[in-house]
Amino acid sequence: MTSKLLSRRDVEFLLYEWLDVTSLCDRPRFADHSRETFDGALDTAERIATEVFLPHRRKSDIEEPEFDGERVRIIPEVGTAFAAFAEAGLLAGPQDYEFGGMQLPLTVHNACFAYVLAANVGSAGYPLLTAANANLLLAHGSPAQIDAFARPELEGRFAGTMCLSEPQAGSSLADVATRAEPDGDSPFGPQFRLFGNKMWISAGEHEVTGNIVHLVLARMPGAPPGVKGISLFIVPRRLVGTDGGCGERNDVALAGLNHKMGYRGTVNTLLNFGEGRFKPGGRPGAVGYLVGEPHRGLSYMFHMMNEARIGVGLGAVALGYAGYLESLDYARNRPQGRPVTSKDPASAPVRIIEHADVRRMLLAQKAYVEGGLALSFYCARLVDEEHTAANEGERAEAHLLLEILTPIAKSWPSQWCLAANDLAIQVHGGYGYTRDYPVEQLYRDNRLNPIHEGTHGIQALDLLGRKVAMEGGKALQLLGTKMTLTIAAARATGDADLTAWAEALADALKRVARTTAALYAARDPERILANASLYLEAFGHVVLAWIWLAQALAAHGKAGEFYDGKRQACRYFFRWELPRTVPQFALLDCLDDTTLAMRDAWF
Amino acid sequence: MTSKLLSRRDVEFLLYEWLDVTSLCDRPRFADHSRETFDGALDTAERIATEVFLPHRRKSDIEEPEFDGERVRIIPEVGTAFAAFAEAGLLAGPQDYEFGGMQLPLTVHNACFAYVLAANVGSAGYPLLTAANANLLLAHGSPAQIDAFARPELEGRFAGTMCLSEPQAGSSLADVATRAEPDGDSPFGPQFRLFGNKMWISAGEHEVTGNIVHLVLARMPGAPPGVKGISLFIVPRRLVGTDGGCGERNDVALAGLNHKMGYRGTVNTLLNFGEGRFKPGGRPGAVGYLVGEPHRGLSYMFHMMNEARIGVGLGAVALGYAGYLESLDYARNRPQGRPVTSKDPASAPVRIIEHADVRRMLLAQKAYVEGGLALSFYCARLVDEEHTAANEGERAEAHLLLEILTPIAKSWPSQWCLAANDLAIQVHGGYGYTRDYPVEQLYRDNRLNPIHEGTHGIQALDLLGRKVAMEGGKALQLLGTKMTLTIAAARATGDADLTAWAEALADALKRVARTTAALYAARDPERILANASLYLEAFGHVVLAWIWLAQALAAHGKAGEFYDGKRQACRYFFRWELPRTVPQFALLDCLDDTTLAMRDAWF
Repeated sequence: MTSKLLSRRDVEFLLYEWLDVTSLCDRPRFADHSRETFDGALDTAERIATEVFLPHRRKSDIEEPEFDGERVRIIPEVGTAFAAFAEAGLLAGPQDYEFGGMQLPLTVHNACFAYVLAANVGSAGYPLLTAANANLLLAHGSPAQIDAFARPELEGRFAGTMCLSEPQAGSSLADVATRAEPDGDSPFGPQFRLFGNKMWISAGEHEVTGNIVHLVLARMPGAPPGVKGISLFIVPRRLVGTDGGCGERNDVALAGLNHKMGYRGTVNTLLNFGEGRFKPGGRPGAVGYLVGEPHRGLSYMFHMMNEARIGVGLGAVALGYAGYLESLDYARNRPQGRPVTSKDPASAPVRIIEHADVRRMLLAQKAYVEGGLALSFYCARLVDEEHTAANEGERAEAHLLLEILTPIAKSWPSQWCLAANDLAIQVHGGYGYTRDYPVEQLYRDNRLNPIHEGTHGIQALDLLGRKVAMEGGKALQLLGTKMTLTIAAARATGDADLTAWAEALADALKRVARTTAALYAARDPERILANASLYLEAFGHVVLAWIWLAQALAAHGKAGEFYDGKRQACRYFFRWELPRTVPQFALLDCLDDTTLAMRDAWF
Repeated sequence: MTSKLLSRRDVEFLLYEWLDVTSLCDRPRFADHSRETFDGALDTAERIATEVFLPHRRKSDIEEPEFDGERVRIIPEVGTAFAAFAEAGLLAGPQDYEFGGMQLPLTVHNACFAYVLAANVGSAGYPLLTAANANLLLAHGSPAQIDAFARPELEGRFAGTMCLSEPQAGSSLADVATRAEPDGDSPFGPQFRLFGNKMWISAGEHEVTGNIVHLVLARMPGAPPGVKGISLFIVPRRLVGTDGGCGERNDVALAGLNHKMGYRGTVNTLLNFGEGRFKPGGRPGAVGYLVGEPHRGLSYMFHMMNEARIGVGLGAVALGYAGYLESLDYARNRPQGRPVTSKDPASAPVRIIEHADVRRMLLAQKAYVEGGLALSFYCARLVDEEHTAANEGERAEAHLLLEILTPIAKSWPSQWCLAANDLAIQVHGGYGYTRDYPVEQLYRDNRLNPIHEGTHGIQALDLLGRKVAMEGGKALQLLGTKMTLTIAAARATGDADLTAWAEALADALKRVARTTAALYAARDPERILANASLYLEAFGHVVLAWIWLAQALAAHGKAGEFYDGKRQACRYFFRWELPRTVPQFALLDCLDDTTLAMRDAWF
């Protein structure tokens, strides 16, 4: 099957030739797996993506969800796709057998999911959120909560949401104001009544499934202010009996739909909790059940944050990848213009891929999307290590690497795979700007990714303000060690290109260390963090240079066009991309205060 | 009046304090003008933009033109706006009094037009094309053609189009295939019948005006192949009698509408000429009148190209500027989060403009849009010089500068003011991604600008392949001389900042000269032009650094927040933006062949 979603050849290179995922099969959790079962899962995912999700990509963009005053109307293909996804076992893919899962490594599961994201990110939103919701309940919910809510989610009978933001509190979760008032006990633990408004809730209201499990951040009376006073609650759309049946509507009401530039297939809502539209048990207030301990809600959410953010990065990659393959196909088939060296108008026009500037735009896309996919898979592989490595030390190491790489895995593809989508349009010329070609929608869809699950600015503060300094800089040191190993391996090949790239990466790594030390030495948090976004961007490019060198190393000594392509994309990254960081580090080193010193009145 | 379209204070600074447009009033053509008449024109434009164009910006995006099989349905506001624009004298603004014009300098006229573009680029498309069409006819049409077609356009009774592209020939006009067969004589000169298809025709079919004047590129029988065999024809939608009345439909038929990402208010069409849908004079074939000489059509079009491309750049600036002011307003009013140095959750959230990273995004936008506007106005000022300077030498100099600056004036704002729109969304967070805030539409609208009127790639070939080499490098030398004068003036102030920036610009200018010489010394057109887009981008940033230094110089010695803002934006440009070019020039210098060497089969 050759889809224009992802290159299967590339996926297999990354999984098997680079990340050696079959070695995971030696571990007890994955003992039933093999290259064959992994390939089977990929086949299934690519088939469902192509046959079930892709055909309505465009339709779900045009026929947005609508609220008719009674219910939200969503095109029926969304439900069909959700069911097919569940049916194929993809919802529970990485979960334990006892929860209906396949105990698939996350690395392979994410590769599967990337096909679905590339095919139709709007429809993929429903299973994505459902799986994430169930995953959180499996980690922090009680057995009764798991049985009543997580199991039906993993079976595809219920869907899930994450309700964090409020109209006045997007990035600033410290300001969550939704109240949770004690309301006795229940079979699912302490019961509360919730009152408040939640904004940007994807898949917040629909009838794709029989019920929706909202996971809601709220404050109990007397909770400490800020992020340390937020608890997590299960608030089902319909109350659930101990027999698992769905009963009366809970007091969760749709207040409005958000109409977005892209991602239109995923209904995005403003929800009112406890406004009295419904009266469960005869009175207003949204019935909710406390998950875990009081006041620890945000830490439960953040426990899942690395995986969620890697997932957003993966979505950005998938959209970029699909656009790349569309523009490659277009460039191979569209005749226009003539070589610069032979402008004879009587000669036939050439295919536009023969123009160097078009190849530049394709090669940049290739470097961005294949690099982004590699980073996403690498991070998923770290999650697998974190959960299943043989000894504690390896698990801790994987965790630490994940901590420092997650802001990059989220932000880098959100920036550069969007840039890839921009180039995909440009390759198409005027046609790419019309809604007749998929690249137009892919670009609009991808513009969300630098915003949700923590904006670029938030990722930057996370990286520079926390991650590089955590445990006395241990995460950064560890990442440096990993890079140094790759550098040494590249040098050891004796290959001229690999050696040159290794030197360039070694220089860049020194620069990261020097700049980071210089910033912290300044002991002026305001001034240091003022340029955190620039640091994030420069740091990200260094990480990707490393990822590209590692790929080139995996391709080393192998003959064939595929490997030649990997080498050329690596060359592109080292010649065209990594040097961008030189002036960026220079600016960071001098603690530039241009933006900090800018005043409101000067605008 | 304080609109969120452009800063009037900035417009006045550029026109009066920097470009000294009132000095033009000493010239015979502009003798009736003064600061008062210029301000009056700006007042009128800002009022019409705000009161007539802006109110339906959103509506013209949502309610796209539709073809019902009979006619194209366009919201009535478009016609009202067109009429108001004509009524205010803006259609004919820069034209001679004898054609109903105001003999307004183009610099002032473009400032007026920028308000309208910022308010509603979709509705602005109709008068924009009409004015450009009439302008071309005034330059190259016969008196009879001018009376019958240009005058009604300038009066707002007819609209105009430019029909260049064909489905198989977008950037490659050498492949224009529309045929023009001789059909005797007419009161408007030699008559032809045209047969062919034209693609991407903006304002190609509507009933906003009583008639549409298509200017169409086509080939006569036996014409030489390529660009030297293309002639230009007037093809009216309805035939026009010598009495000026509109008669039967010409054989120009709508074949379809293009549905775009943005710019939706401007109907964009595929037109069939001579397919026989209509039968003027009893038989198929679109009646057309030759403009000027045979085979010189493209040169007539290119005669207007500088102004047209500066106009596209101006449109990109206007969209970026409107987004900047929207996001500035949002940042000043949206409370969220707390300073990095005081995270007490019990304290009130601050307005987001107090976060340095938000100021970074606003300052970058300010540098892009104010820089872009300054460059656009500077180029318009050169057009005024080209047409009205006292002596031949000055006119020739202005022409030469325009030649080399036009690719920058078109491409730089198309890239960086789109980047500004991207930042405007980011400042808004999730809200910016919804269609409830104008920044979403502005971003989609602006994505067209790197494509039409010559893509980035085409501008790059124009700059590196032609302009820097023209007349033995004279244009580049002249630009260097102009920059050197600014550098000297900046040094002469003795001001530490201005001097530092002058040195940086002097370095950059040397680099441009060195790199350009190195490229040409290679004598390998294929390899040189492979990286033309990179050259365009680096060159553009150097030009903008110059434009910023010139603005800072105009602000020098002046106290006040407005001038402080100019200085800080200049500082931003020199610290954050100009250094980007260092690795770009390095890559150009080594004649990097990464993209050239990339092969189709390696993708």
